[in-house]
Amino acid sequence: MSTRRLAGMTTVEAAAAVVDSPVVLLPAGAFEQHGPGLPLATDLIRAEAVADRVADRLAGQAVIGPSLPVGVSPHHLGFAGTVSLSTATFAAVVRDYVDGLYRHGWRKVLVVTGHGGNDATLGTLAQDLLAERPDLQFAWSPLTPLAADVVAAAGPPEVSGHSGAAETAQMLALAPELVHTDRLTAGTTRLSELDPLAGLARRRGGPKLTVGYDRLSGNGVLGDPRRATPEHGEEIVAAIVEKITDFVTAWLKA
Amino acid sequence: MSTRRLAGMTTVEAAAAVVDSPVVLLPAGAFEQHGPGLPLATDLIRAEAVADRVADRLAGQAVIGPSLPVGVSPHHLGFAGTVSLSTATFAAVVRDYVDGLYRHGWRKVLVVTGHGGNDATLGTLAQDLLAERPDLQFAWSPLTPLAADVVAAAGPPEVSGHSGAAETAQMLALAPELVHTDRLTAGTTRLSELDPLAGLARRRGGPKLTVGYDRLSGNGVLGDPRRATPEHGEEIVAAIVEKITDFVTAWLKA
Amino acid sequence: MSTRRLAGMTTVEAAAAVVDSPVVLLPAGAFEQHGPGLPLATDLIRAEAVADRVADRLAGQAVIGPSLPVGVSPHHLGFAGTVSLSTATFAAVVRDYVDGLYRHGWRKVLVVTGHGGNDATLGTLAQDLLAERPDLQFAWSPLTPLAADVVAAAGPPEVSGHSGAAETAQMLALAPELVHTDRLTAGTTRLSELDPLAGLARRRGGPKLTVGYDRLSGNGVLGDPRRATPEHGEEIVAAIVEKITDFVTAWLKA
Amino acid sequence: MSTRRLAGMTTVEAAAAVVDSPVVLLPAGAFEQHGPGLPLATDLIRAEAVADRVADRLAGQAVIGPSLPVGVSPHHLGFAGTVSLSTATFAAVVRDYVDGLYRHGWRKVLVVTGHGGNDATLGTLAQDLLAERPDLQFAWSPLTPLAADVVAAAGPPEVSGHSGAAETAQMLALAPELVHTDRLTAGTTRLSELDPLAGLARRRGGPKLTVGYDRLSGNGVLGDPRRATPEHGEEIVAAIVEKITDFVTAWLKA
Amino acid sequence: MSTRRLAGMTTVEAAAAVVDSPVVLLPAGAFEQHGPGLPLATDLIRAEAVADRVADRLAGQAVIGPSLPVGVSPHHLGFAGTVSLSTATFAAVVRDYVDGLYRHGWRKVLVVTGHGGNDATLGTLAQDLLAERPDLQFAWSPLTPLAADVVAAAGPPEVSGHSGAAETAQMLALAPELVHTDRLTAGTTRLSELDPLAGLARRRGGPKLTVGYDRLSGNGVLGDPRRATPEHGEEIVAAIVEKITDFVTAWLKA
Amino acid sequence: MSTRRLAGMTTVEAAAAVVDSPVVLLPAGAFEQHGPGLPLATDLIRAEAVADRVADRLAGQAVIGPSLPVGVSPHHLGFAGTVSLSTATFAAVVRDYVDGLYRHGWRKVLVVTGHGGNDATLGTLAQDLLAERPDLQFAWSPLTPLAADVVAAAGPPEVSGHSGAAETAQMLALAPELVHTDRLTAGTTRLSELDPLAGLARRRGGPKLTVGYDRLSGNGVLGDPRRATPEHGEEIVAAIVEKITDFVTAWLKA
Repeated sequence: MSTRRLAGMTTVEAAAAVVDSPVVLLPAGAFEQHGPGLPLATDLIRAEAVADRVADRLAGQAVIGPSLPVGVSPHHLGFAGTVSLSTATFAAVVRDYVDGLYRHGWRKVLVVTGHGGNDATLGTLAQDLLAERPDLQFAWSPLTPLAADVVAAAGPPEVSGHSGAAETAQMLALAPELVHTDRLTAGTTRLSELDPLAGLARRRGGPKLTVGYDRLSGNGVLGDPRRATPEHGEEIVAAIVEKITDFVTAWLKA
Repeated sequence: MSTRRLAGMTTVEAAAAVVDSPVVLLPAGAFEQHGPGLPLATDLIRAEAVADRVADRLAGQAVIGPSLPVGVSPHHLGFAGTVSLSTATFAAVVRDYVDGLYRHGWRKVLVVTGHGGNDATLGTLAQDLLAERPDLQFAWSPLTPLAADVVAAAGPPEVSGHSGAAETAQMLALAPELVHTDRLTAGTTRLSELDPLAGLARRRGGPKLTVGYDRLSGNGVLGDPRRATPEHGEEIVAAIVEKITDFVTAWLKA
Repeated sequence: MSTRRLAGMTTVEAAAAVVDSPVVLLPAGAFEQHGPGLPLATDLIRAEAVADRVADRLAGQAVIGPSLPVGVSPHHLGFAGTVSLSTATFAAVVRDYVDGLYRHGWRKVLVVTGHGGNDATLGTLAQDLLAERPDLQFAWSPLTPLAADVVAAAGPPEVSGHSGAAETAQMLALAPELVHTDRLTAGTTRLSELDPLAGLARRRGGPKLTVGYDRLSGNGVLGDPRRATPEHGEEIVAAIVEKITDFVTAWLKA
Repeated sequence: MSTRRLAGMTTVEAAAAVVDSPVVLLPAGAFEQHGPGLPLATDLIRAEAVADRVADRLAGQAVIGPSLPVGVSPHHLGFAGTVSLSTATFAAVVRDYVDGLYRHGWRKVLVVTGHGGNDATLGTLAQDLLAERPDLQFAWSPLTPLAADVVAAAGPPEVSGHSGAAETAQMLALAPELVHTDRLTAGTTRLSELDPLAGLARRRGGPKLTVGYDRLSGNGVLGDPRRATPEHGEEIVAAIVEKITDFVTAWLKA
Repeated sequence: MSTRRLAGMTTVEAAAAVVDSPVVLLPAGAFEQHGPGLPLATDLIRAEAVADRVADRLAGQAVIGPSLPVGVSPHHLGFAGTVSLSTATFAAVVRDYVDGLYRHGWRKVLVVTGHGGNDATLGTLAQDLLAERPDLQFAWSPLTPLAADVVAAAGPPEVSGHSGAAETAQMLALAPELVHTDRLTAGTTRLSELDPLAGLARRRGGPKLTVGYDRLSGNGVLGDPRRATPEHGEEIVAAIVEKITDFVTAWLKA
Repeated sequence: MSTRRLAGMTTVEAAAAVVDSPVVLLPAGAFEQHGPGLPLATDLIRAEAVADRVADRLAGQAVIGPSLPVGVSPHHLGFAGTVSLSTATFAAVVRDYVDGLYRHGWRKVLVVTGHGGNDATLGTLAQDLLAERPDLQFAWSPLTPLAADVVAAAGPPEVSGHSGAAETAQMLALAPELVHTDRLTAGTTRLSELDPLAGLARRRGGPKLTVGYDRLSGNGVLGDPRRATPEHGEEIVAAIVEKITDFVTAWLKA
């Protein structure tokens, strides 16, 4: 556990952190299927690792608050083991975290989410907090989209994403002991494999339609995780950490 | 009012529409400041106009349900006249609309939103409905982002968007009588005009931070609405209508 | 659209209205069956028209806020096209409207509802706001009951009301293009046509029982809309407008 | 306690009542100021007494369920001792009562409310239950309005109502030991005593405005309770009981 | 009714009580099966009686607020007549009571609950109020557990509790006219009578499992109510009253 | 991480666990002050360790679901770093976890909570689930109270508990690297150190009063953590694990 995590600090150290570390990072994950090769906690593992690195890079100007181990994953409930919060519950939890931190004096909170399914709820919370707590600055960040260039450079297949090469690579870099490399299997890689409704759900640039992942992929994977390497994963993570660190650095001066 | 609007139909015609028109379009707007030249209802006006055209293009395969005249606009509450729903209220309204339509037999509902502030809540609702109503297909669509190419072709300034040239152009095409062309004034057009926090809120590709529009612009405008022309507005609207019509056409076959 | 509607104003004009127009009128309707001759939006159309006239009569002392196009109509859900908000959702929407107006400085808000199904919820909201916002004055008004004398003078049948002669007359006066005069058909006109439970629901002066309109009338109509004339509709509307205008005039001085 | 009250029955007797007594009466009161002469529980006392009499008249075809000792009384919170439920809480309680009774097999529930402040919430609940529990018949009844003729025959002053002669008379008939006849004092009896806003709140036939009772009356009384007699109270109660008994008798056959 | 009950006071007396009686006792019961011999209202009857005695003992330093006649009893819904509030509803009611009392100036509120099923919800409310209303002192107390010594001295059977000898004894002391002594029947008295799951639910000192009372006992009784005597009941009640009076006496000085 | 944790499993392994491991353990902690020597995550660390050992003892018949890292801790908010969920939020999270597990087929869920502040909410949830999901068996267990004998044998001071010797001992046994043995300091150890209100809150056998821990102890500690030894901690943990394992073993057969 990073020494920047409040979880490992005593209240005495936390009191000092309120003064010395104006930014709190909240790692958010999901508890959901990640195909035959990755664990259910994949998104939390990546979010916590990124938060640890960002906090280390910021040399004490940020601390890491409590994690959000379960996120919004209704689209994965067709696969065993997935646990999901409703969007209202997820928002309530983050809001309560924020309220506690605010009470102690923090005014800058950044949720680092390893799971894209949390984005919309974080967006709604940011809006509601704007009206209710005008002196709080609430930010949130996805992970992989911040490394879009690095991911694209690897030439992913037509369909890729959840549990695909980029996500698997990150896990190979961060928690290789939890990756079953021998079981990694390609999922859906071409749009032509999708039925018409699933195809519409993957269309870009038009209306947005949500379908369950059991309709998008037989094994829960989009893309081909066998192409993943730890080196590529490290590149992706580094790019993400860089982007978030830059943001927080500027934020601390704003 | 378009003849495709349920609002203008009797219950007898609505009963026929359940059979003949499997898609319901719900126009969503906002009740918020649009600078010195555009009316508070701008987003609804555009959404309803797009819905009308899409329904006309679909020749009876879609009808238009009740409108959502007020959206999620906490970031505009600093400007007089703005009325906003909390994200929970907005979600509850859309959900109740959907429940009523579902009860009558409809299974495909598409919210057409003229206001980007509604996107996150529509996203959360899509997730919750996926778990609760698996046989419902709920989709939603923004407007201007569907015409990103057309907007970009006009060479907008570094900062543009809300109440800027693209939005004003749409209004000149759709409801010119409500545009005060003599009062159109440029708002923020360059990042260097923003204070550091506002600048962070406009950064792309990193963490997302929400700030009030009164921090982004003195007059509530991003970009320069004086560059707007009705011809460009018509082009934008046509592109949006095309994208949504294509989507629905494919959806009807899915 | 009346020039008194905030929807058509810019934020600059809205800022002036906060000072010059201390009363905000909120038109509330329903999205529900109105028999074979009237459109689903009948109640909103009447509420908006009345609000427009009242605002005009008040010569700038009142403005019209955002509409409530969907109301509380569970009793009409048996007829196709009806969309209903739960009472909690309807209350939340009106409350959010009021909150926004309050934030800008308004302290007198009057909901003008064309739909009696909204009355109970407006009553509960008035109670809750009394405890929560003691410096806000929240009022609400039905339409047709304010013209009870004019309606009674026409000698309505034993059973009349929803989509009957008085309501149809108002539509003939306000939006004749939306009335299918050729399809107007009598609905239930005598108590003896009702089954015992429906009869109890129509009893006056005792306990109140609510039943669905599909139990009260085969075609959703109570009374005989064929007796409606635009002249009578105009009389009814004029009486309503008079009563509300009188009230607001006194309110402005209170 | 009447032998028709479930509260005094064992579960064995309750099981028989489900079969023999298809109607459940729920007495609802308020916990609110009733001027210097009547107790806070006045409304519950009257509701329970009426329920007892109705149940006795129905000879076993109705039982009395749990009471609602606190109602919706925000307008009385300016006077010491008043306790009020929000409208949402009051609705939740009645709904939970109804759910329990429904589970045991009852399908006809009638709330008998001694407090007019509960009316709106009961109205909203009746609407929501119509959509959610179509096979439940939920009714509710006020008290004094059912005896409007008897009350009017006594020639009340221009302003009368809460804690006035009619209500005090009922208490003299039902619970004389709780009436401080020596302290009964006239409250507001003429419209001219009211300030303009309070006057608007008492206007009939127009928009409805709610104000606190501390604005309507210095001692919380509307009318003159000194005119009350137990004989008149008995007449009022008898008229109410008659109306409700008639309703239930017809309901049992419907 | 005790003269210490607010229910029987006028608002004038209540205003004096705010000053003279800093503690408010709220009697909470349940509306649930108590076997073949005790009435559904058993828990409220005991709670009110204890509150009356405590208030009398405190000689004016405490008053009794509105009762809570229905509590949290899902585990008894298998028996006819039981009505239960969800834990959220029960919490909302107590909170609204507390809010009203707080508004009038009271800062010490003690819920006296005759029903153990209310304990958990009262515990959650105490926690939430601690954060929300730091200057309020909210306490709650069960009944029978305060007399554990007296109960144990009677040598109860291996399984005893709900509707058993101790509870029946209290009713014989407090409301003998409501006890059907001729119908009192032993319920479950030995662990060996329980099926394995029910046995686990009665295990002490380990994880807690909740099962319905219809699984614990055929007639809803735990123990043998035939052993109850009014003398023992009086002893139990006296011990409870003593403990609560002591507490409040100390509280008034704290 | 134990191999029994779902977090580390893939969905394929989770699917097998639904069949092979009928019990799911959910470790619940708190994010709250534990004095100058223990970390904020103390309660979660202990709960997860116990769950790991129980699952190991059960040899595959139980798996461990997602953790609850933040609990209900309003009484500790006076100390820096504490983050608390409202009781409603905590209940919603556990409910959503349970719903997900239920959907996959699990019917026995046991929350293992290292934090007593979660007990009341878990109790309310157990009640609500009993009515809503009759075929689910929901159980929950505290930790230290299961080892009451072992704790008492060490002769704790008059006041002890939170962050005292027993809790510190467990941490010394389970996560010694997170215990600052050099900073361990005695907190409140005698009742005479408490002010009258705090004294009432610690009284046993009477009404229950909740006060903030900042009122109970200057450093957030009750008892003397310097007396803790890893051996004693191991004894305590072993006793807890034994009790829970016994329970689950019996449960699996019930």
